[in-house]
Formats: sequence, structure tokens, C-alpha cells
Amino acid sequence: MAKSPACGLRPGSVSLGIGDDAALFRPKRGHETILTCDWFLESTHFLRDKHPPDAVGWKCLARALSDIAAMGGTPRCFLLSLALPASCTGRWLDEFLGGLRRASQEFACTLAGGDTTRRKEILINVTVVGEIRAGRAVLRSGARPGDTIFVSGRLGEAAVGLQTLIHSKGHWKNSNPLIKKHLYPEPRLALGRWLAEKHLATAMMDLSDGISSDLPRLCRASGIGARVQQAKIPVPRLTKRDSAHEADPLQLALHGGDDYELLFTVPQSAVGRVPKSFQGIPLTPVGEITRGRRLLLVREDGNEKTLVPGGWDPFRQKR
Amino acid sequence: MAKSPACGLRPGSVSLGIGDDAALFRPKRGHETILTCDWFLESTHFLRDKHPPDAVGWKCLARALSDIAAMGGTPRCFLLSLALPASCTGRWLDEFLGGLRRASQEFACTLAGGDTTRRKEILINVTVVGEIRAGRAVLRSGARPGDTIFVSGRLGEAAVGLQTLIHSKGHWKNSNPLIKKHLYPEPRLALGRWLAEKHLATAMMDLSDGISSDLPRLCRASGIGARVQQAKIPVPRLTKRDSAHEADPLQLALHGGDDYELLFTVPQSAVGRVPKSFQGIPLTPVGEITRGRRLLLVREDGNEKTLVPGGWDPFRQKR
Repeated sequence: MAKSPACGLRPGSVSLGIGDDAALFRPKRGHETILTCDWFLESTHFLRDKHPPDAVGWKCLARALSDIAAMGGTPRCFLLSLALPASCTGRWLDEFLGGLRRASQEFACTLAGGDTTRRKEILINVTVVGEIRAGRAVLRSGARPGDTIFVSGRLGEAAVGLQTLIHSKGHWKNSNPLIKKHLYPEPRLALGRWLAEKHLATAMMDLSDGISSDLPRLCRASGIGARVQQAKIPVPRLTKRDSAHEADPLQLALHGGDDYELLFTVPQSAVGRVPKSFQGIPLTPVGEITRGRRLLLVREDGNEKTLVPGGWDPFRQKR
Repeated sequence: MAKSPACGLRPGSVSLGIGDDAALFRPKRGHETILTCDWFLESTHFLRDKHPPDAVGWKCLARALSDIAAMGGTPRCFLLSLALPASCTGRWLDEFLGGLRRASQEFACTLAGGDTTRRKEILINVTVVGEIRAGRAVLRSGARPGDTIFVSGRLGEAAVGLQTLIHSKGHWKNSNPLIKKHLYPEPRLALGRWLAEKHLATAMMDLSDGISSDLPRLCRASGIGARVQQAKIPVPRLTKRDSAHEADPLQLALHGGDDYELLFTVPQSAVGRVPKSFQGIPLTPVGEITRGRRLLLVREDGNEKTLVPGGWDPFRQKR
């Protein structure tokens, strides 16, 4: 019988990667495995003529890692399924793999295997395997009435970046931080892990479609409602170089997708232990969990209206 | 903090499935995790007007499970990424899920999560998670000179089934066993597990592209050559109802894809312990592993020629 090269490798590591029928991964004792997969498809999730291949490589992994962050876990390895036109197997592929490699190194998540085929359009699917101590994962279903709702970062920034990118002629400026936020999102892995370890969050998820679409999902999973204070939502700071500079920052923050920030709930007894920022990322209380199932947006004048999901994704609208 | 519902669940099971950011899986102690992913794309791997949705559902999981079988592992759970046109969300989807559910039950592999989106063509990606006792996985790299090369089943049958299916007008007959072999492959999980447990196989892989393409992969991984006896290859038995009935059975067996049989090598000292069949599936010695890197096909008259890869996949040729 063949001896697996796994023997002697440290737990939590990939013991056999690309080149065999499947990859082997040695799980850490006392840990659960976290599994998530994500489509990243040309025309649906990115545009070949607007999104640099390097960013496609970074983002296809980063957005899948955001699901690991949302559970409080640590990424270990990933599988890449890639379908490419022949015209993309040269420079495009090299740059794509460059961005992917950078994300893989930055977030300590090893490529363990995958599947490749030829196709007219670029199709990407990423499966990430993470780990967390058994029983410690922060689910969507744990929010309780009275919990404070927090978000990390500023919401809607990636949506502004996308608009600016789409309307840019030719090269986008590397210096535009909102385009950078759209192209190279940073999964909040350290924050998610810290919230899970400190037992601070009762429920958590990542914001991929906008808080107006994602908060209802957390509320449904927890069987509760929410009241969000409009004035507290951290909206994007727009400048004239942003294409969306005439848009309403609140609408962008409510409905903008692709932020990959964390949405989490904290019991009253623990709110004092949540810092104003974590590793430079602001943590903002934006409302509270309520009994019942209603989702309300409280305006500055005290009037309330129902928070209507309006997840904003120009690609999705097209199909 | 949210209590994960994992607590108290038996190891090796899925503790949190669809509906959260990611799935949770509790690995068995002392086991390694096997990870594999597979594309299953309309026009590339199946045709919407020829392949029944039920078969698409069965096969997208079964072919990924074949990679678990090829390591000697046991499947535990899978993730499904599905992109569908709106026109397929009714009856097509119901039948697809029916076939997928049957395969999931038949092979004890639970749906743990996934990702769905809308798309003009049907795109499927399946990730399977399996397990095997640490260090017991049978790799491609373990073959040694003098080992006997075995195959399970008859090779080329699925290729005949595909040709008959493509040339059939309207409904194909459920009674045609070769069409059934193409549409509803049976991953050789029990055989792979048995070979690994009994320490019989030094190397193993599944036959997905035809032995003329797959055996070179095993040889490369093991750093050896092979001599295959043409007369010993279990070729398809063709009847007049098969579209390929005028084709050369040997060519079909050498180059036909999609068989999902196992190719494995057994040291001389253990060949006597390999039965003629396992659970009704014939196990046939077809040649031996040699020093050097040459792959030879030995004809009945004793003449040898180089085995040239000719993996036969009419879909792949198109692109």
C-alpha cells in the first residue's frame, strides 16, 4: 500500500495537494471543519474588460474566505475550479494566479487541488476549508432580543468603487481606495476569530449583498426582528472623483453589495467590551435586535419605516 | 455566543448544513479528510436535450465520488454550486434534485451547502468531502516495477452508451445497460475501500478519461513504466442496438471516457489475494508495471507498440 505523505505532517495542514485524484487534509483534533463554496463568474460577478485578472484572482478567494470569517474560523486550504477560454491561458492566467497567490499567502490558505476545463467564458468556483474549535462557530441563528447590532467598516464603499471602475475609461487609479475595496476586499478573518474567541458575538454573518438584504437573513435564522438607527449607519465618504458622488450615501450603505464586512450581534452585558475599532477597522453599533419579526429603519426624526431589501448588484439585475 | 448544533453529533457527520455562511463538519478522530471538486457543465460534460435532468443530478455527484473511491475513502458530505437559466428552475430542477438525492442516499453522502446563481447555461460544480484513516489513502504514486495492473469492470462501455444516446431519436431505452452506465455511473466506493483496508493496492486512480490517458498519469506519478497485454483488456460486448457496434471494441476500451472504474496496481506477493470479481464487478489483470518510463501495448502476436493517449471525449473535442 502506498504510504501517504501525510504521516508526520502537522494537523490542520494539507498533506497531499494537486496531482492525485483528490487532496488530503489532516484536521486538528477537537476542531470542526468549515466548508464553503462560491461562484465567481464572468459577466455575473466580474467583467473581463474592467476587472484586472490579478483582482479576479484575489477576490475569488477573498470572498469565499469571508464566509470563514463570518463563522469565526481560520482558513486552511482551498480548491479551485477554473474554466477558461484558450485566449486567457497566457498573460491573463499568469496575472490571475498572481492575485490568487497573494491572497493565499496573505490569509494563510493553501491551494490543495481543483479542476480545470476549457470554456468560452471564464468560470470560477472556489471551495474553502477552514477550522474552528468544536462548538465555537458563531452562527446566524444566535441573536436574541436586546442584543446590539454591530457592523465593521464603512458600508457601501465597494459599491461606489464598482461604479467608479465601470465608468472609468481605461486604467483605474490604484490610489482610489474605494475601487481598491471593490477589487481587493479584505475578509475580516482576525475580527471574526476574535469575536468568536472572546464569546462576544451571539450571531454573525458577512455583508455580501448589502445590509438591507443580509440583516433579514440573520433575523430569519434567529427568529427575531431588528431596529436599525439610520443616523448610525457608517456611510461612504464620497468625493468628486467617485462616479457615485451624487448618489445618496445612505442608499449605498443600505443596499450596496460586495463589502465583505461583518454584521454581528452582541448581548447588552458584553457591549462595553466591544472596542470602537479593531486593528484599525471601525466597529459601529447600528441598532438592536427586537422581539417579533419586523425590520425597521428609524429615521433621525424618530419616524420608523420598514427596511426593504434592495441588495444592489448591477450584474445580477441583468440576468 | 451561539452554541453550535454540532455538540453531541457523531464525528464524521455534518453538524450544520444549508442556510448559514458555511457548513460545519465534524471530522473523525485519527482520520484524514479527502477533498475533491469536479466541473459538470452543459455542452462540455452533458447536453441539455440528450441527458435527462435526473441523470445530470446523479452523475454530477457520482463522478466526484469516484475520486473518493480512487483514494480508498468513504464519502461524508458534498457542496453543490449550481447556476441555472430561469427556464430550468421548474421541472428540470425538480428532476435534477431527484437524481442528486438518489445518489446522495445511495452513497451516504449528505448535501452540506452550496451556492446558486442565475445563468444562461447550466453550470454545476460539486465538492465532495470524504474521510480515510490517516496514512491509509492509496495514491497514484505508489506503483513499483513488477506490480500487476488491474482494472475493475469493462472499459469503454460508457463511451458506447454515450454514442447510442446521442444517436437515439427522442427517448433512450432505460433497458440499455451501456446507456445506463454512461448516465448513472456507480463509483467503486466499496471496492476502493476494500483495497485500501486490505493493503492490496500500491497505487490507484479512477478511469475517467480512458486507460490510454489515465495509466500514463499513474505512471508519471509513480515514476515507472507499464506493459499492457492487449488481449487481456476487458472490452465492451457490443450488440446491434449499440450505435458504436461497428467500432473496434479495443479502441473503445483504450480511449473511451466516463467509465469511472478503478485502475490499481498490486504487488506480486498479493496478486493471489485479489479475487476474480468483487461484489459482481470483474477485476482483471491487464499488465504489469516496468522500470523505465515507457508505456507499451503488447499485441497478441507478441509485438509491442507505444500506448498513445487518445482519451475520447466528443464534448471536449469541440472546444
